[in-house]
Amino acid sequence: MKKIPDEILNCFHNNQRFLILLHQKPDGDAIGSAVALGKGLKRLNKTVDYYIDLPLEDKLVFFNEVQFFNQRLSDCYDVIVYLDCSTSSFAFSPAEMPAAKIKLVLDHHKSNASYGDLNFVEITGATAEIVFRVLRALGVGIDEEMADAIFTGITTDTGSFQFSNVTFETHYIASQLYTIKSDFAHLSKRLHTQKTIAQMKMTGEAIHSLEILDSLPIALMILDHQTINKFGGAINITDDVANLGQNTTGVAITAFLKEVEPGDYRVSLRAKYPFDIHEIALKYGGGGHERAAGFNFSGDINELKRDLMEVYESQNGKC
Amino acid sequence: MKKIPDEILNCFHNNQRFLILLHQKPDGDAIGSAVALGKGLKRLNKTVDYYIDLPLEDKLVFFNEVQFFNQRLSDCYDVIVYLDCSTSSFAFSPAEMPAAKIKLVLDHHKSNASYGDLNFVEITGATAEIVFRVLRALGVGIDEEMADAIFTGITTDTGSFQFSNVTFETHYIASQLYTIKSDFAHLSKRLHTQKTIAQMKMTGEAIHSLEILDSLPIALMILDHQTINKFGGAINITDDVANLGQNTTGVAITAFLKEVEPGDYRVSLRAKYPFDIHEIALKYGGGGHERAAGFNFSGDINELKRDLMEVYESQNGKC
Repeated sequence: MKKIPDEILNCFHNNQRFLILLHQKPDGDAIGSAVALGKGLKRLNKTVDYYIDLPLEDKLVFFNEVQFFNQRLSDCYDVIVYLDCSTSSFAFSPAEMPAAKIKLVLDHHKSNASYGDLNFVEITGATAEIVFRVLRALGVGIDEEMADAIFTGITTDTGSFQFSNVTFETHYIASQLYTIKSDFAHLSKRLHTQKTIAQMKMTGEAIHSLEILDSLPIALMILDHQTINKFGGAINITDDVANLGQNTTGVAITAFLKEVEPGDYRVSLRAKYPFDIHEIALKYGGGGHERAAGFNFSGDINELKRDLMEVYESQNGKC
Repeated sequence: MKKIPDEILNCFHNNQRFLILLHQKPDGDAIGSAVALGKGLKRLNKTVDYYIDLPLEDKLVFFNEVQFFNQRLSDCYDVIVYLDCSTSSFAFSPAEMPAAKIKLVLDHHKSNASYGDLNFVEITGATAEIVFRVLRALGVGIDEEMADAIFTGITTDTGSFQFSNVTFETHYIASQLYTIKSDFAHLSKRLHTQKTIAQMKMTGEAIHSLEILDSLPIALMILDHQTINKFGGAINITDDVANLGQNTTGVAITAFLKEVEPGDYRVSLRAKYPFDIHEIALKYGGGGHERAAGFNFSGDINELKRDLMEVYESQNGKC
């Protein structure tokens, strides 16, 4: 665990007006980090504004601090803080960027190229871990809402402490949060397990459609347009369903097809190491990474199945 | 955190032959605690036998130490250790109990009446937390398999650190485990997310059957006999499915019916505080607790639905 450098701490101590920016479509770690850092700076009598991509996911709107998001934007700040943003272009920022003396980057993404004037980038489970350490180093008291915010960042970015980004420090910080608030069970349930009846039913239909292709470790799941419409039209279960495919014993590649309009599919692909489904996504005009990619598709599903099987066959045993 | 009493530590130091017993149908905490304590005592050059209810769940058989389970049973021991057993009758024990100088109980269940000659009972997230503390207090080195075992106990009994039984100490101990082994992601996946295709398909069918009773917050899910048979006959997804019902927004009571033979159902009930479904289970000749109970049922499902709705109506607003 690196010590938070003095120049970072001095930047907070010696300045007054802060603007907090997050990445587009902010997740639990981005919002949790913003709430904890924003409230912490206010406790040091700083002025804090937030410019954040709204609306938030329902499960994240419970923080009181959310009422101050996007309420005020000045022409100029002492410091603009980029939280949890791997690149500045990925940040959600005003069309006319306010002037600022210092651009400060706090982030945990490996790909972060330290694009700020000041940067603290460390590969931790969550940016919220870094915010916790900054607050402690600044000597700021952490209240229950700030503890909830840091816990939210950690538990969402680590899959409830299950991913390989978890370290000694992740659990050590979590243990410290329990000295501030004795129970995070209700929050965990809100963040990880609650689904609306429509989300639950769509998940069931997606599992019902689960097909293992030609005895290969490839899973295909489809939500057709009629089913999506029946449950309200919002398909906010993509990650969950794709994970269910991947969590099936023996499955290495999952394709989840959502028929957003009749005959028009949004395809989400997931792969386990060492498989790379990035190139199929590129072939169909989409994008993503080696293990998670997506594209729009309106062709013959059998062709897509053949492509998936070919990718598996060609990559199997390569390493 | 109570210190482990000297009389407990002395019992381990001053004796030689140990038998480890667990509760019936041992879960991750029972097995993890047995593996860690058993290996730890062997490191102190003690003789350790295990008498354990087999077969284990597939996800728990990976410990090397499992090969020593039920391999030897003597007529007499210095110490019989009851691990994770709230009562002695709940323990899985030999038809003819070996003689023992000392019956030692290590457990985390609130209901434990300290039925041993020596008892260390503390309400922790998992019995494995107590085992970790005992091993540290005994000065035993913890190897990677023992760390896996303790992690298994903690993560399974706390729902991956999500339940309200998690404390400062749970995370503190988890942080210490990361100093022994740097990554528990693969183990977490094995314990929490992997399902066979049959389990996944049955889960999908159960969600497909999800019905909200009469607009009340009661969920009913059914797996019929034909579906169960289609996917191999083993219904080893009860907890997962019952949890899915309870995780649906607004649901307070879930009934999950498995048609084990045509017309014969095994019913699992779950309730959220303050609802108590214990009495319905008793009425039908079953048992359990306020929030989790079960019974066998071969009557009219509509009658059961009416009973569930009555329980909800009569208890709603009571507190």
